Amino acid sequence: MLLEHIDGFIIDLDGTVYRGVEAIDGAKETIDALQKRNLPVVFLSNRGNISRAMCVERLGRIGIDARPEQILLTSTVTGQYLRKHAPEAKVWTLGDRGLREELAEQGVTLAMHPEEADKLVITLHENLTYSELNDAFRAARSGAEIIATNEDKSFPGENGESIDVAGMIGAIVATTGQQVQVVIGKPSQIMADAALHALGLSPERCLVIGDSIASDIALGKRAGMRTALVLSGSSTREHGENAVDRPDYIWDSLADLLIELEREELSA
Amino acid sequence: MLLEHIDGFIIDLDGTVYRGVEAIDGAKETIDALQKRNLPVVFLSNRGNISRAMCVERLGRIGIDARPEQILLTSTVTGQYLRKHAPEAKVWTLGDRGLREELAEQGVTLAMHPEEADKLVITLHENLTYSELNDAFRAARSGAEIIATNEDKSFPGENGESIDVAGMIGAIVATTGQQVQVVIGKPSQIMADAALHALGLSPERCLVIGDSIASDIALGKRAGMRTALVLSGSSTREHGENAVDRPDYIWDSLADLLIELEREELSA
Repeated sequence: MLLEHIDGFIIDLDGTVYRGVEAIDGAKETIDALQKRNLPVVFLSNRGNISRAMCVERLGRIGIDARPEQILLTSTVTGQYLRKHAPEAKVWTLGDRGLREELAEQGVTLAMHPEEADKLVITLHENLTYSELNDAFRAARSGAEIIATNEDKSFPGENGESIDVAGMIGAIVATTGQQVQVVIGKPSQIMADAALHALGLSPERCLVIGDSIASDIALGKRAGMRTALVLSGSSTREHGENAVDRPDYIWDSLADLLIELEREELSA
Repeated sequence: MLLEHIDGFIIDLDGTVYRGVEAIDGAKETIDALQKRNLPVVFLSNRGNISRAMCVERLGRIGIDARPEQILLTSTVTGQYLRKHAPEAKVWTLGDRGLREELAEQGVTLAMHPEEADKLVITLHENLTYSELNDAFRAARSGAEIIATNEDKSFPGENGESIDVAGMIGAIVATTGQQVQVVIGKPSQIMADAALHALGLSPERCLVIGDSIASDIALGKRAGMRTALVLSGSSTREHGENAVDRPDYIWDSLADLLIELEREELSA
């Protein structure tokens, strides 16, 4: 029984639930089925440039009903991290406005001027301007320590592969001599702990499902969870079979979880 | 006689002739005096985000009459470099529009799409947007070799120290794995040769005047020219006196050249 002793589901978003603005076939039905059975679900994503509120809305548009507490973006977890480890810190951001909104929502104090910031949080900024890049430069140059939501070099954008957070980081690191102090995103233990805390479960009772071996599967393996790779995003079956962090299961998509769920119920 | 055997003057712009939009006291009068005596002058600047036409206009606004042929910006010299070393290359740019205009003026072929570019020229982009950063990322990712007009990390902007070319380079290098192949700007021999070619003189007959030890004085020393550091920009007298590349002369500003010129004429 594949799902035996699994009491919580940690599900990636981009490439697992949706691709861009499109739902992935069967994702909605699977999540509906888990929710209907009151099986605990959290969505764990390395995206740091949107807020939970924006994410709830995005999921709503493809018919998925999620509560904010079920969503753990790197913007969310960066906020939690700062509140815990640097509660007094004034924070400057380089990233789309969703990051700032989420940090504020998490109770983080945002700096009024770059020069007064203790921390600089960097995420993807799809609306980057020189002026904003310059403000972040000034924050780091004045001593703000860099926290990165993730370090991805590129992501599949609407019209092709696009420059990601590593570009924003590269600009600041190359000009200020500051290094990145913490990377919040998967496969970090920070993200694993955030998910486990939200679920209230121990790792061996959780299944991580995602399309990335380097972030989703690696996170699950390191934290002692069971893992399922879906092939609806950036990985192929060969990637999964040859990975050092070999997933416990390889599924075409999240819909395979629904099939498995129904099969086990029938045979129960 | 300080100016004996000096037949040509290589003069830096930012910090030597002007600061931002303001003329430096005495710069206009000194340049007027050189031009009136038909002493050959070229302006040699690491600025790559404006064209010669823009520079002529900028000098005109502070009363300095310069011909385009007297102006060697890194945008100009990058154009000359490409025409000589990669005449067939299709070129993409990351920088303000002045770079593109100057390259076109120099006869460089600009690529229509980032993916088809053979070279990516990077300079300061004070109007940077995510979309332009992304296009440059795609050019480099598709194999375009990176040429940098210069590698400065920051410059004194209107409202404080501001992020310079190294930021734009850092974003692309960190995400594409490409390295910078050539840096055109001072203190390179490329810039020294461009100035000597424009003046039609051998190096020992030239005097380089500028406010930067690392670019102006170093260029002159390496190329076998005489050098004068002016204190109207980024350097102090102590910088000059303690520099490994010690300038032959240290002047408060370019106006000291006019004083010297008139003194030597009187005593002649």
